[in-house]
Amino acid sequence: MERLKCTLQYDGSHFSGFQIQPGKRTVQGILEKALQKMHKGEPVRIHPSGRTDTGVHAKGQTIHFDSPYNIPMYNWKQALNTLLPDDIYVKQVEVVPNTFHARYDVVEKEYRYYVYHAKEPDVFRRHYAYFFPYALDVASMQVACRYLEGTHDFTTFSSAKATTRGSKQRTLYQVTCEQRGAEIEFIFRGSGFLYNMVRIIVGVILDIGQGRREASDIAVLLSKRDRRAVGETVPAQGLYLCRVKY
Amino acid sequence: MERLKCTLQYDGSHFSGFQIQPGKRTVQGILEKALQKMHKGEPVRIHPSGRTDTGVHAKGQTIHFDSPYNIPMYNWKQALNTLLPDDIYVKQVEVVPNTFHARYDVVEKEYRYYVYHAKEPDVFRRHYAYFFPYALDVASMQVACRYLEGTHDFTTFSSAKATTRGSKQRTLYQVTCEQRGAEIEFIFRGSGFLYNMVRIIVGVILDIGQGRREASDIAVLLSKRDRRAVGETVPAQGLYLCRVKY
Repeated sequence: MERLKCTLQYDGSHFSGFQIQPGKRTVQGILEKALQKMHKGEPVRIHPSGRTDTGVHAKGQTIHFDSPYNIPMYNWKQALNTLLPDDIYVKQVEVVPNTFHARYDVVEKEYRYYVYHAKEPDVFRRHYAYFFPYALDVASMQVACRYLEGTHDFTTFSSAKATTRGSKQRTLYQVTCEQRGAEIEFIFRGSGFLYNMVRIIVGVILDIGQGRREASDIAVLLSKRDRRAVGETVPAQGLYLCRVKY
Repeated sequence: MERLKCTLQYDGSHFSGFQIQPGKRTVQGILEKALQKMHKGEPVRIHPSGRTDTGVHAKGQTIHFDSPYNIPMYNWKQALNTLLPDDIYVKQVEVVPNTFHARYDVVEKEYRYYVYHAKEPDVFRRHYAYFFPYALDVASMQVACRYLEGTHDFTTFSSAKATTRGSKQRTLYQVTCEQRGAEIEFIFRGSGFLYNMVRIIVGVILDIGQGRREASDIAVLLSKRDRRAVGETVPAQGLYLCRVKY
């Protein structure tokens, strides 16, 4: 058996998220179907770096799986891409040690979130950015970002529905936001992320950008460790899993 | 009766083109359904500047229609956008003289075509640009563009299936192509365009970029007045109707 690591891109618009579910079109379902075809009907289980929700995109998701086949790596990539629909693309396939695990071995993840900040919507961005037509003070949002960097308990900024056990302490190495043309790009790099964490944080930063909160409120909110202290989770379509480091 | 002119944007990915067809999702079908709803069940016929094919996008299509209602223009826009799905957006509604015609009064149209020029495809561009992984000499493509500007008989560069009667002479005011990051942007401004004209021209320019033809062949091809002299029509998803001038 050989363990293979794949790096992939997918447009989350037409998937019911990553995780396999009966009767739903999911990234895992489509990938496992393609692998099963390559393995003459034998089921092959894949393991992602983490799940993504319905509508969330990936530019650099990673998965691993085991295969009895000894295929040159370029052929793996080509064979998989031939079998996959046009909204998933395998960028790289590598042979890794049998001890490698796509989820447990993650040392850093990078997410980006895009806000389409204009008076009127753009139909071409509707699945790829969150349309936000209200005035924003980007400078105060940038100050807020700085308060999030470092090691904190992110209970306030994670879904109350999450079933995460153990510590909700995580380290964020980078939290930035920049105006790029009509869009605001948020970059989050961290040791790990709790369920809905990026989307809840972006919601609070947008509150700060609108002047509904102060940037310095972040410290108070972190210390509350209570999801109810903050507002709504922003929509999935602005979120991209960009890179996973091992 | 008041004549109204609308400027609209649509993502062509999930439409079977502009023109109404029974049982198909078309831009005209969706627009007329929304207008019929606003007119208490009375059918309202719309007239576009021209049709667009399946998969072709619009950033500035225009239509006109007649209505017995006297509604402030901002309300027209808002009412229509409320009734329309998220892949069509009305940017502007104007009252125009009853003699105005969205098709017959066109004095200039602008189309753009996008080629995604990279070694590997990008899932996020699959509906919005033509993926072309082969080497291209953009400088010779730019020379070819110059040969197309001006007044010519474009029979060679229009679909043989077209039912256009009368002259196939058109004037192109601008034909340009520029590398923009991983994409090549073509801009076409002209007095009018024959069926498939932009997509056939882009195919020939890409042949020139690959060195399969010389830029100066354009003059010879124009003089042949024969669609069979040139190669295939490039895919619809790279094409955008950007602006219509009256």
